[in-house]
Amino acid sequence: MTKVHPTSYVSPQAKLGNDVEIGPFSIIHDNVILGDRTSIGSYCELGISTPLGDGSPLIIGDDSLIRSHSVFYESSLFGVKLMTGHHVTIRENTKAGDGFQIGTLCEIQGGCQVGNYVRLQSNVFVGKKTKIGNFVWVLPYVVLTNDPTPPSNQLIGCTIEDFAIVAAMAVILPGVTVGHHSLVAAHACVSKDVPPRMFVAGVPARVIGETKSIKRRDGSKDAAYPWTLHFHRGYPDEVVAKWKAEIEDIDEST
Amino acid sequence: MTKVHPTSYVSPQAKLGNDVEIGPFSIIHDNVILGDRTSIGSYCELGISTPLGDGSPLIIGDDSLIRSHSVFYESSLFGVKLMTGHHVTIRENTKAGDGFQIGTLCEIQGGCQVGNYVRLQSNVFVGKKTKIGNFVWVLPYVVLTNDPTPPSNQLIGCTIEDFAIVAAMAVILPGVTVGHHSLVAAHACVSKDVPPRMFVAGVPARVIGETKSIKRRDGSKDAAYPWTLHFHRGYPDEVVAKWKAEIEDIDEST
Amino acid sequence: MTKVHPTSYVSPQAKLGNDVEIGPFSIIHDNVILGDRTSIGSYCELGISTPLGDGSPLIIGDDSLIRSHSVFYESSLFGVKLMTGHHVTIRENTKAGDGFQIGTLCEIQGGCQVGNYVRLQSNVFVGKKTKIGNFVWVLPYVVLTNDPTPPSNQLIGCTIEDFAIVAAMAVILPGVTVGHHSLVAAHACVSKDVPPRMFVAGVPARVIGETKSIKRRDGSKDAAYPWTLHFHRGYPDEVVAKWKAEIEDIDEST
Repeated sequence: MTKVHPTSYVSPQAKLGNDVEIGPFSIIHDNVILGDRTSIGSYCELGISTPLGDGSPLIIGDDSLIRSHSVFYESSLFGVKLMTGHHVTIRENTKAGDGFQIGTLCEIQGGCQVGNYVRLQSNVFVGKKTKIGNFVWVLPYVVLTNDPTPPSNQLIGCTIEDFAIVAAMAVILPGVTVGHHSLVAAHACVSKDVPPRMFVAGVPARVIGETKSIKRRDGSKDAAYPWTLHFHRGYPDEVVAKWKAEIEDIDEST
Repeated sequence: MTKVHPTSYVSPQAKLGNDVEIGPFSIIHDNVILGDRTSIGSYCELGISTPLGDGSPLIIGDDSLIRSHSVFYESSLFGVKLMTGHHVTIRENTKAGDGFQIGTLCEIQGGCQVGNYVRLQSNVFVGKKTKIGNFVWVLPYVVLTNDPTPPSNQLIGCTIEDFAIVAAMAVILPGVTVGHHSLVAAHACVSKDVPPRMFVAGVPARVIGETKSIKRRDGSKDAAYPWTLHFHRGYPDEVVAKWKAEIEDIDEST
Repeated sequence: MTKVHPTSYVSPQAKLGNDVEIGPFSIIHDNVILGDRTSIGSYCELGISTPLGDGSPLIIGDDSLIRSHSVFYESSLFGVKLMTGHHVTIRENTKAGDGFQIGTLCEIQGGCQVGNYVRLQSNVFVGKKTKIGNFVWVLPYVVLTNDPTPPSNQLIGCTIEDFAIVAAMAVILPGVTVGHHSLVAAHACVSKDVPPRMFVAGVPARVIGETKSIKRRDGSKDAAYPWTLHFHRGYPDEVVAKWKAEIEDIDEST
């Protein structure tokens, strides 16, 4: 059964799925579609209208959780199992896949593409026109920029490829591609493309080596990367099974 | 006609101009003056009283827009066309000119001076006693500091001069002057004054060259700086006309 | 007399001390204990239940002040005179001492230990399992990390010892100990332990010298560190008296 707190405003034009919950003091505007079993916390405002949108609704997939004090504009699309922290701000024209996790204080400026099972930790800034692949990790206080010569009208988004990890407080400069399975160290400033499976660090960032040379800190002396070897928490079983099959293929071919 | 959402609290002592709009769940305290056609979003609290103020009201100029979840203290003054993002926090005793844009998650700690048409992008921290000139750009996650030997009682604000640009994740150390038309690169840590029209980068920041040597990325091979040559979006016509006249004067004198 | 704003929700199971004030549009859940004379601002949500907690209540000590738009989970404990800025987020299982100050936009991720009279300035990120001693200062936009090879299940918190200062935009890498009375410079990335009373800077951070060699900027030419020599604002008289006695002991022994 859908439960709307009596202090909340839900537009009669908004479309709510089954068993949706809307917390206290929240606002759901006209142009919003919420999937089944989705839960919206307190003090959230969803579906703010904007001339920068394409007129399409804000669509949130089934089984999603949006925590308190969060703001979403219309004209963005999220797959199933979206989960946010508190105080997030998401502008228009973003398309994201399933299982997207957005940490507390994150901001997505709009016009971005995000793959499946991407995890932004706290306070990540995603500039307009950013492209993020699948299974990407972005750690706290990372800034993904887009203006090569600020201020200008040439917005060139970054690209973060599948399985890449961008560590805390890194800045990715406009138009840079962070390659698949690569690792950007904490506090790096990345001005050149990062090759796949490599590890970069510094200001400006330089290639330090291959990610596979980095050891885990659990006493095992095993390689920490590719991280899909040992970290599976929160991913669907079928995804993990596919990762395992791919890794066995690599092992057999070497 | 002024529209106050029925869930909002507006003090009878607050002075609202014509055609003001106040969104849901907002609070306007006693010591507030809002200009004509100003719009306040949801979950905002304006005019919080503080013993650190000088007793003067919070004054917001005509045609301003304050977005949701924002907090303003009393004893600050903003010109016309103030525009904020979401979740901003502005303390007391700040004086800003016209056309000030403050991005989502910005914080201004109080006692600051800000010129005309200044743009702070998202999540900028402006420490107490900062001085910002006219037409300045500050990009995401910049920190403008003020304590030379923390913790101390010697707060020495930074100065950012006219037309300067401070790129993402830069830190400006206490008392530093960033010269007019200069550019601080992303992720720089600036411990010395930046000369006018120069470009600095690194930790600690060093002078890399003149800004005029930086090319645009639009295929034109033209100089990106001074940016007033090619970027005019959102500035009043009379301002842009003046910039053009000044640039012609320079061309003729060389 | 306790004052609860008529728009706020306070659970009948929550335990409020004497002379508590709850501002407009705030929510106090069941599992919350608020000390005497504590004041909660607007749009706050306290005591959010979580399966990650240990079932214990959120306990806030006497004479505390929590500012607007802040979020606290259950199962955390704060001593007397807690003071927060706006928009803070505090997760479960944190234990903090007296006089803890948490700036605007700070996030504490949970499972942290914090000593007495610690001051986090604005927008500080405290990762899970961080340990912070007594009288520590953490300046704006500092990130205290915990995952040595992200993503992994080995969360290794940082340790910040008594009287240490971590300046703006520094990152402390997982498991690093920042020694007592040491100073981490602005924008440093700290990958190794910082020895007591030393000053580190850079990316990666290196030891620059002893903190006692840094001079104050007040014209006195006196040493800026240990800062307890000259900075006492906001600390209880008995604490300051103890600092003075310790310093005299050192003077006599040298």
